[in-house]
Amino acid sequence: MTKNYRLTIHSQERANAVNSRLNTQMKFLVEIDKLKSVLRQSYLINGKQRENSAEHSWHVAMMALVLSEYADNEINLVHVVKILLVHDIVEIDAGDTYCYDDTGLLSQMEREKKAADRIFGLLPEDQAHEMFALWEEYEAHVTPEAKFAAALDRLMPLLHNYYTEGKSWQEHGITREQVINRNACISEGSEALWEYALSIINKSVSQGYLAAT
Amino acid sequence: MTKNYRLTIHSQERANAVNSRLNTQMKFLVEIDKLKSVLRQSYLINGKQRENSAEHSWHVAMMALVLSEYADNEINLVHVVKILLVHDIVEIDAGDTYCYDDTGLLSQMEREKKAADRIFGLLPEDQAHEMFALWEEYEAHVTPEAKFAAALDRLMPLLHNYYTEGKSWQEHGITREQVINRNACISEGSEALWEYALSIINKSVSQGYLAAT
Repeated sequence: MTKNYRLTIHSQERANAVNSRLNTQMKFLVEIDKLKSVLRQSYLINGKQRENSAEHSWHVAMMALVLSEYADNEINLVHVVKILLVHDIVEIDAGDTYCYDDTGLLSQMEREKKAADRIFGLLPEDQAHEMFALWEEYEAHVTPEAKFAAALDRLMPLLHNYYTEGKSWQEHGITREQVINRNACISEGSEALWEYALSIINKSVSQGYLAAT
Repeated sequence: MTKNYRLTIHSQERANAVNSRLNTQMKFLVEIDKLKSVLRQSYLINGKQRENSAEHSWHVAMMALVLSEYADNEINLVHVVKILLVHDIVEIDAGDTYCYDDTGLLSQMEREKKAADRIFGLLPEDQAHEMFALWEEYEAHVTPEAKFAAALDRLMPLLHNYYTEGKSWQEHGITREQVINRNACISEGSEALWEYALSIINKSVSQGYLAAT
């Protein structure tokens, strides 16, 4: 009887521990719904509205599934997908920093680090650590997976700009030189995708979507 | 000279083949931007607007990363994530079928099969086949990965309803019995998540978010 009673307590304790962990995880999953309300500068390809960071994260993850063969270094595709799903979550607190906003870019790291601490910190410790590490790896831009993820993250807005006839470039008065400088790092992940990006940029200039100077 | 000349031709042919494949893949990636304009019945947790299928796909993929430990069968997590990223793309043509719309559900399979043929068919054949297979696997609901993916896909709207005080349930006059019947399959992927779902459903009834009968 004593033994059974102890077993019951243990199994109840285990159930409570599981519930507590699950509740913590759900709290995080509810919190990140807010990423759907973080607007980026890019417009949807139909040109009707700006895209948000959650749908962008899905789109670049799909891009990874479709374009992984163009990575110049050997990559672990799952790891690239995880990085891309997680990389923008910090924007819930830090906002989306436009990639041509030089002032915003100066404070970006500090704002995003604080956001990563708070948001990933909602998770149980092991998972908080894993998510934080994925975000940090992306930002450090050193591993083949981070470089390829960054290449896709840069390439996507070029497509959105091209198919909306340069809508967000024109709103911000962006030039070809700025686009080249800001996106040249695509070549660190994939020469083939950088060549493709260059062709998109040059077509955009010749069609008047992007200012030559 | 002849040999070099041949090599040049071959290398040019290879470059053309790569470009043609990449252009095809990009066409698909541009096409699926439309998923961001497919509205679901669920509201964002802030209650301000309905969510779209692209941001939902990101959210359930994140859910898979966080909750994989609750799968009752051994699962390949990457495969679950791939299924979830791809599973709603057919809605670009077929629209989102509300899970309590019994008439819509009757024609859903036919509409979605046609959509899958067209949209995945934009990809090079090997990838078209892979994406189609992922979607088909999800729909067949047989493999552990498909069952777990479906469990997450069902659980997520329960959270959205609970946190918006039953907004979309009330708009459609949904009752507890309907919710239980439609979501019981969560237990095929995870008993723990089904228990959690039941607790959410029961709290929703007791707080007046969901009609008891």
